[in-house]
Formats: sequence, C-alpha cells, structure tokens
Amino acid sequence: QLLQSATNNRDAFRQALVNTLERRLFYMPSFKIYRGVAGLYDYGPPGCAVKSNVLAFWRQHFVLEENMLEVDCPCVTPEIVLKASGHVEKFTDLMVKDEKTGTCYRADHLLKDYCKDKLEKDLTITAEKAAELKHVLALLDDLSAEELGAKIKEYGITAPDTKNHLSDPYPFNLMFQTSIGPSGLTPGYMRPETAQGIFVNFKDLYYYNGNKLPFAAAQIGQAFRNEISPRQGLLRVREFTLAEIEHFVDPQDKSHPKFSEIASLEFLMFPREGQMSGQSAERVQIGEAVAKGIVNNETLGYFIGRVYLFLTRLGIDKERLRFRQHLANEMAHYAADCWDAEIECSYGWIECVGIADRSAYDLCAHSDKSGVALVAQEKYSEPREVEKLVIAPVKKELGLAFKGNQKMVTEALEVMDEKVALQMKADLESKGEVEFYICCLGKNVTVKKSMVSISKEKKKEHQRVFTPSVIEPSFGIGRIIYCLFEHAFYTRPSKAGDEQLNVFRFPPLVAPIKCTVFPLVQNQQYEEVAKFISKSLTAAGISHKIDITGTSIGKRYARTDELGVPFAVTVDSRSSVTIRERDSKDQIRVNMENVAAVVKEVTDGQSTWDDILKAYPLHSSGSVDEE
Amino acid sequence: QLLQSATNNRDAFRQALVNTLERRLFYMPSFKIYRGVAGLYDYGPPGCAVKSNVLAFWRQHFVLEENMLEVDCPCVTPEIVLKASGHVEKFTDLMVKDEKTGTCYRADHLLKDYCKDKLEKDLTITAEKAAELKHVLALLDDLSAEELGAKIKEYGITAPDTKNHLSDPYPFNLMFQTSIGPSGLTPGYMRPETAQGIFVNFKDLYYYNGNKLPFAAAQIGQAFRNEISPRQGLLRVREFTLAEIEHFVDPQDKSHPKFSEIASLEFLMFPREGQMSGQSAERVQIGEAVAKGIVNNETLGYFIGRVYLFLTRLGIDKERLRFRQHLANEMAHYAADCWDAEIECSYGWIECVGIADRSAYDLCAHSDKSGVALVAQEKYSEPREVEKLVIAPVKKELGLAFKGNQKMVTEALEVMDEKVALQMKADLESKGEVEFYICCLGKNVTVKKSMVSISKEKKKEHQRVFTPSVIEPSFGIGRIIYCLFEHAFYTRPSKAGDEQLNVFRFPPLVAPIKCTVFPLVQNQQYEEVAKFISKSLTAAGISHKIDITGTSIGKRYARTDELGVPFAVTVDSRSSVTIRERDSKDQIRVNMENVAAVVKEVTDGQSTWDDILKAYPLHSSGSVDEE
Repeated sequence: QLLQSATNNRDAFRQALVNTLERRLFYMPSFKIYRGVAGLYDYGPPGCAVKSNVLAFWRQHFVLEENMLEVDCPCVTPEIVLKASGHVEKFTDLMVKDEKTGTCYRADHLLKDYCKDKLEKDLTITAEKAAELKHVLALLDDLSAEELGAKIKEYGITAPDTKNHLSDPYPFNLMFQTSIGPSGLTPGYMRPETAQGIFVNFKDLYYYNGNKLPFAAAQIGQAFRNEISPRQGLLRVREFTLAEIEHFVDPQDKSHPKFSEIASLEFLMFPREGQMSGQSAERVQIGEAVAKGIVNNETLGYFIGRVYLFLTRLGIDKERLRFRQHLANEMAHYAADCWDAEIECSYGWIECVGIADRSAYDLCAHSDKSGVALVAQEKYSEPREVEKLVIAPVKKELGLAFKGNQKMVTEALEVMDEKVALQMKADLESKGEVEFYICCLGKNVTVKKSMVSISKEKKKEHQRVFTPSVIEPSFGIGRIIYCLFEHAFYTRPSKAGDEQLNVFRFPPLVAPIKCTVFPLVQNQQYEEVAKFISKSLTAAGISHKIDITGTSIGKRYARTDELGVPFAVTVDSRSSVTIRERDSKDQIRVNMENVAAVVKEVTDGQSTWDDILKAYPLHSSGSVDEE
Repeated sequence: QLLQSATNNRDAFRQALVNTLERRLFYMPSFKIYRGVAGLYDYGPPGCAVKSNVLAFWRQHFVLEENMLEVDCPCVTPEIVLKASGHVEKFTDLMVKDEKTGTCYRADHLLKDYCKDKLEKDLTITAEKAAELKHVLALLDDLSAEELGAKIKEYGITAPDTKNHLSDPYPFNLMFQTSIGPSGLTPGYMRPETAQGIFVNFKDLYYYNGNKLPFAAAQIGQAFRNEISPRQGLLRVREFTLAEIEHFVDPQDKSHPKFSEIASLEFLMFPREGQMSGQSAERVQIGEAVAKGIVNNETLGYFIGRVYLFLTRLGIDKERLRFRQHLANEMAHYAADCWDAEIECSYGWIECVGIADRSAYDLCAHSDKSGVALVAQEKYSEPREVEKLVIAPVKKELGLAFKGNQKMVTEALEVMDEKVALQMKADLESKGEVEFYICCLGKNVTVKKSMVSISKEKKKEHQRVFTPSVIEPSFGIGRIIYCLFEHAFYTRPSKAGDEQLNVFRFPPLVAPIKCTVFPLVQNQQYEEVAKFISKSLTAAGISHKIDITGTSIGKRYARTDELGVPFAVTVDSRSSVTIRERDSKDQIRVNMENVAAVVKEVTDGQSTWDDILKAYPLHSSGSVDEE
C-alpha cells in the first residue's frame, strides 16, 4: 500500500511537471497538428535555450578544459562503416507482432511489464512464483529470442491493446535505413551514435595532435534509433542529441596527469560486487575507488569525476546521482570496464552518461575492414632488444601437400598467436606432426615438421607500434535535460495561499532566460528605463525578456518562476530598480546603469547571489508586493 | 587568353586553399578510410571551431538581438508534412542515366557544361551559335524535361566519363527516404530544410508570444539533399547545416520598428531590372531601395541589412558580396519578393543566404492539409462594420438536380471567392442560369437561379482573422564558411623569402583558436609561465593552444598563422610576455597577469587591436625574430 501511494505521488508529480513543460513549450510532440509521431519531440523556445546552455557548458567543461579535438561528421553513413562497427549485424531489439493487427512491441518490454505488474498487483502469488518473476527480471537483458518467446508463451502474454496472440520474437534492426545517391545501389543509415565518425578519422586526428598520445576527440550531434515502440517521453526517442568523447590512450599507461585534481571527490558509487550481493550504492572517494581497483584505471576514474562535476553544476541533485558499474553480462566482451552515470527520476534510475573503457575494439574493427592501419607509435629514446616470434612456412612442402588450399594454410600459419605457435613448435618436435584447424576451410589439416619453421629471434626495435585503447564518455543530452527538469521542479503556495505555483530552480548557467524586466506600473518613464536596461542586457549578451503588459507584478513573477528565470528586474523609479532572486524571493536595490553588470556577474558564475546580497542594499518588498 | 589565365589563377588559388584546408583538417571528405562518399564532409578541429563560432554569433546577432523564439525539431519527418509543403511532389532535379553503366547525372549540369565549354574553348563557332548557347544558359532553370532532353539530343551530349548515350531526363526526388517505426508502413524523409518544423508549430509559438504579431522563430539544424552528382566541395553537399528564421507578420503591415537603424547602410544590390537590362550590381542605400519599391517592404529590407552586417562582421569582403533579386521566373508563384545574398568566390557568385517574402503560402498549405487553422487575430478596439459575402446554396434544388454529386456542387459553391461569386450573381440575374466548373468532378454543371442565393450583407466584426505572411532569411552555413575561407586566405613570403606562407585573416570572432602560447626557448621557468597563462585563458573561456616543442619561433608563428590564430603570446621572461598580432606582425609587451584580460578584450570585440596598441608598449622584435 505504501508502494502504491509512492507510485501515485510519483505519477502526480510527473503529470504536474509534464503539463508545465508542455504548456510553456519546453518541449512538445513533433508534428502535433498532424497528430504527431511517437518518439519525436521538438524543443520549444525555453527548452531549446536550456539545451544550448547545456551544450555550451559541455564544450567549456570538456572540450576547452581538456583541449579536445572537436569534429563534426555527417549523420548519413554508408553501410560499410556500420558493418565494421557491428551495428548492421547486432544493433537490434527483439520484436513481437500482434498476429492480427500487425502492431509491433518490444518482446522484453512486454515480459518486463507482465512480471512487474504481477509482482505489484497480484497479492495471491506464492513466494516461489514471486522469486521466479524476480529472477526473470534480473535476467531480462540476457534472454535469447527463443527464451523470450518461451516465457511469453508460458505466461500467456498477449498484445496489450487487443489481447491477440503474438508472433515469436525476432530481431529488428534499430537503424533508420536510406539510400545514398540516385542509383539506389549504395545503402546507408542514419548514424546510431556519433563515435564512428571519430574512429574513422583516428589517423588524421593523431597526426593533427603531433602524433602524440593521449588525446581526446569530441563530437556533438544528432543520432537516430528507430525504436520499436517508444515510451517514457524524452527518455526513449527516435532522434536525439549525443555528446561523445573518445579519449585515446596507450593501453600500457592509462594514468591521467590531472587525476589528482578530482581524486578527493566523493559521491555515490555502485560497483559490480555491491549489486551482486544486494547492497545499495555507497559514497566513495573516486581516488580510493581507483586505488582499490574498483575502477579499472585513472583515466576512466578521471572522467567519472569530471562527469560528476558536470552534472551537479548543471543542477542535478547529487543525492539522486550514482555511478553504476556494468555487470559482467551487460558489458561487451572487449570492454575493460564500464560505468553509467544514472540519475534518479520518476521513471527510476536512468542511464544518462555511459563511461566505458572499450579497449582497442573500435580501431581494430575499422583497421580490419578498411585496410588502413589505425595505430600509434612510441619511439624509443634508444633501440630495445626484443624477442620476436618468427613463423616461416615452407611453401614448397605446403604446395605438395595441400595444392589449391596451400594459400589458406600458409596464411593461417602466419597469423597464429604466440601461444598457439609455441605449442605447435613443441608438438612438431615431439611428434613430428600435428592437427591444425583452418578456419576458412572449416576443417583440420595435418601439418608436418618439414612444412613450417617456428623460432624466436632477438631483434633490435626502434619503436613500438600499437592500437590505442579508447575511453568513451557518451552523454545522452535529452535524458540529462529531462532529469534536470525533474530535479529543478517544485511548487510553492501563492501568497494568498489559494493555489500552488510552479518553479524551476535552474542554476543561472542553465536557465533559458537569465532575467526579466518589468516596469512596476504602466507608465512611459518606467518603460523607457526598462528599455534602457533591456538594451544594456543585450549588449552584455544576456538573454532576457521584457514584459510591459499591465498584469499584476505577482502574476508576472509567477510566470517567470515557471520558466526558471533566476532574476527579475522591477522598474519602480527613474534611476534605481530592484532585482529579485527566484528561489529566496530576496530583492536588492541597484542603480539602473549597473543592472547588466550585476546580472552578468552572477549568471557567468563569477559571483554567487550571496556575494551580491552583501554588496547591495536589501529591498524589503512593501508596495512591490507579491500576490 | 586573358580569360584562360584568370581561370588558371583562380584554379591555382583554389588548389592552394583546399590543400591547406584539408592538410590542417578544417574539413575533409567523410569516411576517407573507406574511400569516402561524394557530397559528405567532416569538419575537423579548426573547421568545427569556426562553425561553432559562426553559429554562436548567428544566435547573438539574430536570436538574442531580436528576441526570436528558437526551436529545435527532428530531422526525421513524416511524409504528410512534406506532402503539404510540396516537397514530395516537387523537390526534384532532372536526371539522365548513362545507358550502359547506369551512372546518373544532372541533366541541366551537362547542358550547362556543354554550352560553357563551347563558348570558352571553341573559337570556330559563329556569332549566331554563340548567341544561341548564351540564350540556352539564361533559360536553363526554366527548361522542362522534354526541352532539356531535346537540347541534349540536338547537341549530341553524351555521358562525360564514357561517351555513352544518355537516357531521357526524368525527375529524381532529392529527399533521403526512410521508414519510421518497425511496421514499414510509415514513410518518412530526412528534412530538406528546417522551416517546416517552425510552420507546423505556428499555433503554439503565436500563443507563446502572447498572441501578438510580428514575431520571429528560428532554428539551426541539419538538412539533407540526396544530390544526383555532388561537386564543388563544400558548396554542394548531401548534408548541411541550415540556420533559418521565419518572421511572421501581418500582410497589411510589413513595416519594421527597427528599420531606421539599418536604413543608411549602403552595399551592392542587383535588382531584377538591372539583371534584365545587362547592367551590373550597384551600391544602393537599403533605405532608398525600400522607399523606391525596389525591395518589397521594410521587414524584408531590414533583414537584408542585418544579413549584410552579419556576413561582413564574420569577415566576408563587402566588395564581393551582393544582394541579387530573383527574376520573375526564379521565384515561386506565391512569393512577394526574394533576394539572395551572393558571395563571390573561385566558383563564381554563390547563393549563401536566401531572403524571401513567402506570403501566406506555407501556413495555408499546412492549414489545408492538417485541418488546424494556422491564423492570427487582430482584435479591434471597437467593432467595425464590414460588408460580407453570403453564399447560401439551396440544398433541396441542388439535390434534385445533381443527386449523388450534390455535396460536391454545394461545397464548390460555398468556397467561391468574392469575384467569382459576384460574377455568378450577375449572370444568374441576367441569364437565369450559368455553367460552373466543378474541380473534383472534372466537368461543368449548369447552376440555376433557384439553386443558390448570393448576397452582400453588412456585419459588425470585433476582430480580423488572417493568415500571417512569412519573411524567411535562410542561411547555408557551410557555404558561408567556405566563402569565408576563400576571403580570409592569403599568402606572404617568409622572412628568408624562400617560400610562401599561408595565412587566414579570420577576425577574432571567427578564429578557431584565439591565441597560442609559446615559451621562446625550452626552459622550465618559461614553461611554468606558459602554463600559468594557459590556465588563466581557460578560466576566461578563451580557446588556445600551448606549444612547448623546441621548434623555431618562426616556424611556430607560421603554423598558427595557417590556422588563422589572431594572437600569439611568446614567453621570453619570467614576468612579462609579448603578444603578436597575426596580420600586422606587431608585438606588444604585457605583464603575464594581464594576458588573459587583454586577449579577452580584443577577441570579445570590446577593443580593437589598434586600441590595444595605444595602451601597451610596442615590442620591437630583436631576439624574438621571425624566420
């Protein structure tokens, strides 16, 4: 019952928030006059301003601060690039179809909803059954198409809208497909992430950076996922803005020179072990987490710390932000470690930033497919002696033995890794021959001692050539903004107490409009002062709004609070004006010539409102009263 | 021959520029390691920085200055929206195919190339023939598929690469098509422009603006055109950034309150009459052009002036910028007037900004298709008496006469415009019956006097409801940036005189990096000063680069000149440093604590370099000599 009431509260909060957001045009369903398209949203004027403030701060906090190489690549991407990255084959969700209407659903969502619903609402289920459903929920991401289909049949799950039978689950590729050029012969996709544009440019970027590691490249841009059945508003959409960083680093040295600057930050972390043993997230110093090996390396830890600073400075509540480590089954096989910045909102804990050490996977994949080596060199200050494995197939013998297959056997021998080769050497010496599996023939062949010579030789090397590791912080900008809306939103009673007024407590950095300007009463002289102040604010580059309607001052304050405007300038004389701060409702008195400078100082972050309060006389609201 | 040498110079200049741009990663062909895709380009680090500076200034100059309502809509667009806008039917180019290889070409490009080539290179053609070819070039945009095909046959034009026969021209839609959602039943396109996202939101935006006109909405975003055979580098690409403004205005009052602020600006204008009579562009005051009716209205004129200021402040040469009015045959039938900001570069005069008065076309099209009225109201301060046309079909009579077609005849009568209705009234009175064409029946019917009553009645109205006109300045950001590169690029001899060095004379506003910091010689103390200055620049939000390599100072200056960095700080002592300006090579001496403030002042545009020169001692380069 408590759970039920918490759910109700949460739904009521979300409803109030979403009503406000849509009414004030923070965002709205796209193409509304045509009844819209699920999963596509527009940002209206205040939402668009919040978004560009978040992106400007992202550039300042990451790109400028770390001297990153920002690039800008197209959304339209030829198929070969996304074949190399694995998206053509694997970027799928399992889908089921209503057998009569053809409506499509995500198979895992239906199973998840069924389990959650049973657990929450069916009071008759046994403890055993409850445990089973919880187990299914925990394994959801790991289920194959067959297993999902079996569960759907077992539980008798039908189409939510019609109760019709469902098809078996089958994979649906989430990329929007198109065709490049007029011939119809070059398939392409709208990119599902911006990262690939950086990887394929690695060689040029490495050169641009003076052939030195580490360095980071960054990109802000649109990405596209043709979701099967989008829901959860801004959290799951078909087109969204990503901001991604690819930090390239020597796999043998993942230290970070600026790690000490963030090492003492402490915040909620949720390591793999804690999740497995049913604990909850705990406050940990990031320096300690790296020292103990909970976080794989310093560079990964550095970015976790920087992401924490980024999100909290935007206005994300630090008590509702945690860094959760991926479980072994969530992580790609090549990843060294992976942490999600999760923000708690009315939909639960939502992944908003992924911070992954993807090792050399992406660069290797594109090297293989393109034939262009995406590698780095470390020049030794003096040559080093190294032991090198030398595999020398004897072509004549191989030709006699394998005829047409000689080339394939030769190549397979040449690319053996060191362990396999040394084992073969030992076996050949002891037994004289050995069975050897040739992948592209799909069978074993018998290799004799006379066919290959394997040895270790000492060589002098002047440099080391290697594929860099990449550490990737990837930001879902729309998700961050939605969570920010939730964390910033609150209501407070009007002065008369007869209604609840909405407020967004955006920090000045994020606020869509920094300041409003009102003449207290409609009168030409006040209007001129208001216009003078407006001009000086424009010159200072401060977004603001001037409101010369005759509406009561209380109503005007309420309107701007609902847009999260942090400061309101009220013209109540011909020389000085008051500035009101949104959350405290404190007012100070400032000379009209100084307004732009004061507002700039406090919105640029050079001063806090508390600093300002000390420097200017407090104005006690008398006639300038709020409703 | 003079022409030929001008062509050679132009090509050599472009080659030098493009080499520099690609080598320094201003831009590069996308997906290069996979041999690229025609018409897709990446911006590398300096190009990306130039682009974000241009967009930031666009926001400051237009959105902030005019309090525009900025929105952000998706690229993926459902078909119905683009059917309403006319893009599904009409956004096509005429294409011909190589009959053997299937390679596609733009029909008009082949004909244009043929004519130009003949005129330039064939010295044997008669005056008559030359006149004919020139006539074809002038009419190129007006030719139908049949006419183009006939010309191609007549001139024996074949496929440029293979000399094979060509197919007849046929229309190819330039939108990238895709499918939204998993069912495959919802066709969609990647938007060809951002404007439609604003039009479909008109109702909400008008409400957001307090139901008041005029107001402007703006959008920056990606747009897509699946060009048949892209060429001319950044000028004709398949994906590009547009920045568009839709200024909504009462069609009865297109005055602009701030027109006087730009009325005295004087620049090159090329009105329709001048083009028709073979004159060239002339310097005209925009105020005069509007007063004389050369430019249709004040609002259009205001934006022309603002665009002029925008482009020249970015660094576009005002002598190579003109505003060219569309000829009657270029302009859509609904447009009231249209001017292109054209910038001259090595490819000729290139359309970079279009400024069109599109009248009520777009809002009407979406009102019709969606059934949602996209209109504005003007409330009268007191009711006005107006004469209203009243058309009252007599359903009984119509039913008897037309049976199943009654509804269509009734509707056609009801939507007659005033002129048609009054003519019918007169005809019915004089003749008793009249032939009337019913569009959706495709034939005439006979309407008798008993079937409809037409009258004019006086009514009191409290408001006027109307569809606003829209004035649309639309900016091709990539084209502007390319022209900027051309106008900013020059070479100058190295000090030794043995080579030509490349320089971009970007204004600080646009420069990708504002400042570089070099220790004069490699030494720990200088390096510490350099790092101190770097930190203070980061804190001031100034993008910069620190170069502590041991390369000679001359080489380091040359490197930064080639990126268009306006200021170089050289650390040659432990307390003060020199700041060198790129184009004059002047140096001043500044205390290390003041560097960030000085650079900020001059890059923010608060001071010019000349102001700075007066305030700080000039440093005569002695030991700090350039190569």
